[in-house]
Amino acid sequence: MFPARIEKVQEELRNRGWAAVAIMPGANLRYLTGLSFYASKRLTFAVVPVEGEIATLLPEMERARAENEQRIPLRYYPYAHDETPDRALRSLVEDYSLERAPIAVEPYAFRMFEAWTFEKAIGSNRFEDADRILTPLRARKDSDEIAAMRTAVKMIEYSLSETIRFIRPGQTEREIAAFWLQSLLDQGSEGPSFPLTVGSGPNGSFPHHENSDRRIANGDLIVLDGGALFQGYASDITRTVAVGEPTSEMREVYSLVQRANAAGRARATVGATGHEIDTAARTVIDSGGYGPQFLHRTGHGLGLEIHEPPFIAVNETMPLSVGATFTIEPGIYIKGRFGVRIEDMVTLTGDGAETLTTLDRELLVIKTDQ
Amino acid sequence: MFPARIEKVQEELRNRGWAAVAIMPGANLRYLTGLSFYASKRLTFAVVPVEGEIATLLPEMERARAENEQRIPLRYYPYAHDETPDRALRSLVEDYSLERAPIAVEPYAFRMFEAWTFEKAIGSNRFEDADRILTPLRARKDSDEIAAMRTAVKMIEYSLSETIRFIRPGQTEREIAAFWLQSLLDQGSEGPSFPLTVGSGPNGSFPHHENSDRRIANGDLIVLDGGALFQGYASDITRTVAVGEPTSEMREVYSLVQRANAAGRARATVGATGHEIDTAARTVIDSGGYGPQFLHRTGHGLGLEIHEPPFIAVNETMPLSVGATFTIEPGIYIKGRFGVRIEDMVTLTGDGAETLTTLDRELLVIKTDQ
Repeated sequence: MFPARIEKVQEELRNRGWAAVAIMPGANLRYLTGLSFYASKRLTFAVVPVEGEIATLLPEMERARAENEQRIPLRYYPYAHDETPDRALRSLVEDYSLERAPIAVEPYAFRMFEAWTFEKAIGSNRFEDADRILTPLRARKDSDEIAAMRTAVKMIEYSLSETIRFIRPGQTEREIAAFWLQSLLDQGSEGPSFPLTVGSGPNGSFPHHENSDRRIANGDLIVLDGGALFQGYASDITRTVAVGEPTSEMREVYSLVQRANAAGRARATVGATGHEIDTAARTVIDSGGYGPQFLHRTGHGLGLEIHEPPFIAVNETMPLSVGATFTIEPGIYIKGRFGVRIEDMVTLTGDGAETLTTLDRELLVIKTDQ
Repeated sequence: MFPARIEKVQEELRNRGWAAVAIMPGANLRYLTGLSFYASKRLTFAVVPVEGEIATLLPEMERARAENEQRIPLRYYPYAHDETPDRALRSLVEDYSLERAPIAVEPYAFRMFEAWTFEKAIGSNRFEDADRILTPLRARKDSDEIAAMRTAVKMIEYSLSETIRFIRPGQTEREIAAFWLQSLLDQGSEGPSFPLTVGSGPNGSFPHHENSDRRIANGDLIVLDGGALFQGYASDITRTVAVGEPTSEMREVYSLVQRANAAGRARATVGATGHEIDTAARTVIDSGGYGPQFLHRTGHGLGLEIHEPPFIAVNETMPLSVGATFTIEPGIYIKGRFGVRIEDMVTLTGDGAETLTTLDRELLVIKTDQ
């Protein structure tokens, strides 16, 4: 699996006449080498050359862990805690003949820190866009990747079901999120794929909300948005529940979002574009009169990152391939009062699409004493 | 507090003849505006101009949350989900006369994505280093910042004490970390400041370890490294405990690390350099014959980030100021067998240094049935 990925990258490098691609700590590094490193202030990167072994420059103290994690051969260029990376970097540039070579870098991971360091060492201040190679590769999930994501879906769905059963008026958003997190960790997940979010009442009207000490009240809608990590792969699901009997306006908005979610999923097939799927969901909400309250795109790809291509948005016109895996998550946000979002994960197969998330999409009403 | 910070930045811009500094989502944005945004693939940044109001470009859907969080006046340049940021960016560049202006950017936050976008909009491909302004400012913690960190210390110490009482042979590292996390969240922390780490037996010999399903055994040393977030500010502490009676080699190594920790803390005063403090700790370990097994620098600054200047390392020669707050964390790592690290947090005051962390540093032996 890893050697096949490297081979595809090297083939693309040859086609484009590029010497190498520099890979920073993060999702692409994990995808290509197995190393699960995070961006820090200490120079760390791998270089995939047009042919031959991958080079890895890193602090000496990280080497043992890297050797433990690597899934393909790596040639190490370590530097000690009491020296700058200059010596190691010079050897790497020399061994791989990188001086003034056209190098591709990741737009969302390569920082000015690396740009300035590379310019000094390599003498080039022009970088190519590595995502032209890496994005199409990562967007087609293989069967190992889908298997990891299925497990991540099971973990988040089980813990979300438990959490919904736990909810009572008087609890704070933070208390509910803490219960959810504990339940998720009990499933053996490495952790949430992003902070588990509990947006109650008016807080549900922020598409991105930070959990607060607001207490759940009778009559609230609660937007519960969460995901699990398993073997580095993310899941992502949102359900909206009512605490006590919802108003007829809430029921109308919910039903509209539910139909938009179904329309988006129905449109998801190989060859469809993000634009078409977005439009299918958006038309339902527009025709219900809530278009201006659907504040965001319909969905995003996910895998080793919680947000990655393909995006399901109005300006996305590339036809989607087999293996494309993304969310469908229409929402309506009534500022200062309440929000509704229903989010599922979809993967494209040879003969259509499979919705990976399975939790019931009907409005669940949590009974209260009143 | 926020206006004073902005004033200092603008004064530095004037001194250097720079037009503005661009601030990406992350610690500096929170420090200067109160906005707690994270880096994403959607263009989001603030611009602090040499004079006048701060400009903020962001997706329209994030505006309500930003207005909720902002601690100073901001002028918004939002863009909708169905357009690129180009129109908003053009207005901002025009309103603030940024075309071909010398702009400072953050080396560890400004990415090629932003560099390419700015070059297109502003027509400049030369950026100044914003850390020359921001690093000295952030390194001197004010009393509000120290107060937040004191609370973050209390939270991690209480939860770590509970966790140490919970540990028994047969538990896995992940189970212990999950207990610790739950206890930390119960304290009202926003979460850990980095993944809580439980390195048992041979796993303790990796300075950076990912928790595994390894079960605690009689005779293990366990390195417990964790921190809490409170109001965005981080704490960080490490203690090493023994499960059952440790060997005399373990006791010798522990005692050496304990004395190195004390020597480092004793050397921490206003005017001392990172080099001097690092040397004070390192000399103890060197003279005990374990120099090559002390794989990393002695410490790092922390605050809104878990690793930030000042660094306590051999090549750091800048004298430290009042308010500098950092860790002292010598360690010895016996590859494949065990590790010991003792980490405390220190803040420099007018008349010396205060160690913020207070948990006992004597080797604690967890009794087992054997």
